[in-house]
Amino acid sequence: MSTGKELKIGLFGFGVVGEGLYRVLHQTPSLKATIKKVCIKDATKKRNAPAELFTTNKEDLLFDPEINVIVEVINESQPAFEIIQTAMLQGKAVVSASKKMIAEHLPEILELQQKTGLPFLCEASACASIPVIRNLEEYYDNDLLHAIKAIVNGSTNYILTKMFEENIRFQDAVLQAQQLGFAEADPKLDVEGFDALFKWIILLNHAYGIVANPNEILFSGIQQIQLSDALVAKEKQQEIKLVAQATKLRDGGIAAFVLPQFVKKEDHLAFVKNEYNGVVIESGFSDKQFFYGKGAGSFPTASAVLSDIAALRYDYRYEYKKRYQHQPNVLSNDYYLKVYLSFEEWDHIPKENFEWIEEWHAHETRKYLIGVIHVSHLKDKTWWKEQNISLILAPQPIIEEVELKKIQKKSLELAGVS
Amino acid sequence: MSTGKELKIGLFGFGVVGEGLYRVLHQTPSLKATIKKVCIKDATKKRNAPAELFTTNKEDLLFDPEINVIVEVINESQPAFEIIQTAMLQGKAVVSASKKMIAEHLPEILELQQKTGLPFLCEASACASIPVIRNLEEYYDNDLLHAIKAIVNGSTNYILTKMFEENIRFQDAVLQAQQLGFAEADPKLDVEGFDALFKWIILLNHAYGIVANPNEILFSGIQQIQLSDALVAKEKQQEIKLVAQATKLRDGGIAAFVLPQFVKKEDHLAFVKNEYNGVVIESGFSDKQFFYGKGAGSFPTASAVLSDIAALRYDYRYEYKKRYQHQPNVLSNDYYLKVYLSFEEWDHIPKENFEWIEEWHAHETRKYLIGVIHVSHLKDKTWWKEQNISLILAPQPIIEEVELKKIQKKSLELAGVS
Repeated sequence: MSTGKELKIGLFGFGVVGEGLYRVLHQTPSLKATIKKVCIKDATKKRNAPAELFTTNKEDLLFDPEINVIVEVINESQPAFEIIQTAMLQGKAVVSASKKMIAEHLPEILELQQKTGLPFLCEASACASIPVIRNLEEYYDNDLLHAIKAIVNGSTNYILTKMFEENIRFQDAVLQAQQLGFAEADPKLDVEGFDALFKWIILLNHAYGIVANPNEILFSGIQQIQLSDALVAKEKQQEIKLVAQATKLRDGGIAAFVLPQFVKKEDHLAFVKNEYNGVVIESGFSDKQFFYGKGAGSFPTASAVLSDIAALRYDYRYEYKKRYQHQPNVLSNDYYLKVYLSFEEWDHIPKENFEWIEEWHAHETRKYLIGVIHVSHLKDKTWWKEQNISLILAPQPIIEEVELKKIQKKSLELAGVS
Repeated sequence: MSTGKELKIGLFGFGVVGEGLYRVLHQTPSLKATIKKVCIKDATKKRNAPAELFTTNKEDLLFDPEINVIVEVINESQPAFEIIQTAMLQGKAVVSASKKMIAEHLPEILELQQKTGLPFLCEASACASIPVIRNLEEYYDNDLLHAIKAIVNGSTNYILTKMFEENIRFQDAVLQAQQLGFAEADPKLDVEGFDALFKWIILLNHAYGIVANPNEILFSGIQQIQLSDALVAKEKQQEIKLVAQATKLRDGGIAAFVLPQFVKKEDHLAFVKNEYNGVVIESGFSDKQFFYGKGAGSFPTASAVLSDIAALRYDYRYEYKKRYQHQPNVLSNDYYLKVYLSFEEWDHIPKENFEWIEEWHAHETRKYLIGVIHVSHLKDKTWWKEQNISLILAPQPIIEEVELKKIQKKSLELAGVS
């Protein structure tokens, strides 16, 4: 039985993830993977490893013929891309955890893989310890993958959980999350939905073979959600989650977005509290599957990187079957969404864009409505991200043209019009 | 980019799983996997496939040099083993769904793999659509795998859910399960815990590198559980589940058993209702992970078989890293269990074997106690499987020697003895 090949690793980044990885590899000689050199930015910083391991010159790693794997766990997107590009052109396999970089350079990364035939693995870039990428690659290629819905950002999920459970305002919940290390000092990337968007672009590729540009996906974060919205959810026996969703429509197109969503108490995603992540995969043969675990943090991330390293020993690489071996799916912008809006003034809402509004209320400080709107009135539009408007999807938000027609016909009949 | 090799499949068994597989492969030419021949027992039965596909002579498959993969989804254990043995000796990769056969022949199957270097994949044999085997192989090898707890039998879980939610007796719940197809006409294999035991033996191997014989594992089913036990659970805000558990002890030994267990409402496993399965993996780096999905049925099983077939295209095989590349773990029989017992007569209980009994009650028809007992008083003993005794583990059931001593010392101090 093969025990796999020897890996000599060049590591970029020695923060919490990089250092954790170094320690674990050190303690696992059976893996036959050793870090030969680590490239860091700041040579003056004290490190818990022998000084001769470190360099500030990336070429010491990238052009060392003995190094056959580059592991990249740095923060900056553009330098990360340059590293993985040079590494692959130099014949080295790559493991990366940089979600922003991958989301922004997906077409180039795919091309690099095709051109070089080398593995580029990135399990740590989405949901960290949940092995979602490899499971999407290996398990759902032949099934009819109906939908995938996920909570992919632990920081916003922690904030929403706190707002919900402790009846506190968004700003206070953000503060709590920051104090506990679940949100960055600048929480914009998380709370405005960018982090979730980047991860979703990566998962869309492995789930459906779609290579989307970040600006092609309808998304928002949770920065507009009010405590009063959480109270509305409670009344309805529901919770609010930032849900990344992709659903196959009748015509084969894929509706994909990252938006706050009302989630019923019995829904799998309602189980996901605090800083955890969860992924629900709906497929034709295996029904609903639910994966749950820590989606961020040094150890869960290091653990995902480690599993990629272990996979490289038997030359594992993503096959991207849905992209290269099937007719790849395409994004659709032709569907309707059932949305809840809470807002201050009726004037801020383009009521004429709604197919119908089925419920509305006016409280003292805040008004709200539930209605059905075509996605084109939200996508690339800014009105709903302004004026202190909070938009949250209904639990089964997607309505297709044919369903819409049926509902409209029925209500006309009920009204005695036809 | 490689698109994998062509697979020519010889299929044993054309029941619901086999036929489902045939249909799906037929509809997925991109997989480059075709069924060349199907071996069946009953040639007279009408089949929904061309007659020339079928044979009753297994040698037509096993000795056809063109066939490079044998897929085996038959029910009988001994014939299944003979098939996979001959297949591998003939140089063919094998995919099997026969949990009983694998559990009973594990040492021989491992030897066959080592001897031939060929893949033997069996994702469908445990938890079907939940990809637990491959995840244990790939994701938890370098982590400290603290524990794995799972609901691996959907039939008993359905019965327990019904008893609990509808306040009905065991026998009535079994009847309901049978009517809905969630339990066999002869439910013994499921309700007495054998099916869960076989699956657990397979998972112990992939989780910890342990090759256990079925008679080495402490187990029981749910056949003794009373409606009154379910009511006790409800009072405590808990549920009863048939839990397969393996936990690493302080000395590195593994405590492994399959027993009914009280599960707290907030526990991941309490989320698993009806015929579903769930697996909780506790590891050093990724904290708790939870996998949930359908563990049986034709489509979930076919879906798991299919994922194995897809993996064969790039020559995937289990490395059994924990067995061959690490010091393999060993089963321990040196720990204590906190148990709940309900029974009819005090005389049926060997009270002298308990370290202590911390709670006891006598209702009109039924008595119960909660106490701590060394595993050796349960393992290979029959008293607790007789006399209408119902044994259910406490939520955190394992107590090690050192903890026991501490607790005893403290209670002696409290009693003013030392």
